Amino acid sequence: MSHDPYAIRPGERAVTLPDRVDAHLVFIGRIHTPFTMRAECPRQGRQDGPLCRIEIDAPWREGLKGLEGFAQAEVLYWMHQARRDLVLQSPKHNGETMGTFALRSPVRPNPISTSRVAIVAIGEGWVDVRGLDCLDGTPLIDLKPEHCAFSPPRN
Amino acid sequence: MSHDPYAIRPGERAVTLPDRVDAHLVFIGRIHTPFTMRAECPRQGRQDGPLCRIEIDAPWREGLKGLEGFAQAEVLYWMHQARRDLVLQSPKHNGETMGTFALRSPVRPNPISTSRVAIVAIGEGWVDVRGLDCLDGTPLIDLKPEHCAFSPPRN
Repeated sequence: MSHDPYAIRPGERAVTLPDRVDAHLVFIGRIHTPFTMRAECPRQGRQDGPLCRIEIDAPWREGLKGLEGFAQAEVLYWMHQARRDLVLQSPKHNGETMGTFALRSPVRPNPISTSRVAIVAIGEGWVDVRGLDCLDGTPLIDLKPEHCAFSPPRN
Repeated sequence: MSHDPYAIRPGERAVTLPDRVDAHLVFIGRIHTPFTMRAECPRQGRQDGPLCRIEIDAPWREGLKGLEGFAQAEVLYWMHQARRDLVLQSPKHNGETMGTFALRSPVRPNPISTSRVAIVAIGEGWVDVRGLDCLDGTPLIDLKPEHCAFSPPRN
């Protein structure tokens, strides 16, 4: 049975993306997960989910110094297979039409996903975590201590 | 007393950014806050902080449909004044040198900040929130229901 993941569902609306580049990203590594097809990805990661490895590219590896002091991290990654032009979406699981900003779908003008993960182990240029939901090979954008865990000094 | 916010502090290390563009962002709106200088920005937003307005550009306004069903949102924004090349940083408040990925500093290879905000009101193309920490005029990248509030169906 063929299935086009890019097909527009009833109620969905596509808009014309501005012909403009406002900022650029540099991928800083890759994420390795057991999910090799979109249909296998959970709708949201769980901290009792499978072990995943975040690999940091060589120039940025020193940036991990001190991360071992945190139990949880926030991971930002690029949903490279997602379309960017839907402003209304009808998720498959219920068919209800919602605005893109009322969903955590990968389909959005800037297809960046964020996950809160449990840090399991850290090595030279890698971090093993649980809580991701993305395809194997997903480009990494950022990694930082999770809000809750990070207690800034009083301002 | 003059102060260069871009000066490198003891222990900090800059790397050469790759001469490469891996993805591009389109700003989808602006954030209005009472903070007009970097020194006024709190180190992290608090949900009892000042009221801020997120303005969504016209093409994307329909994307807010359904957001009224959530009490909290996650906001992604571009730290347009931050340098991107530090892999080790010595935050001013304690002088300890840490890796960039062990900090929530705006200085990072992809200077995207995330905040968890309380939704106060939603109108045509705007959302009033509390919990932001950024400069007035900061470019908006994304807005979505907060992880905790968002309960995906079982996979």
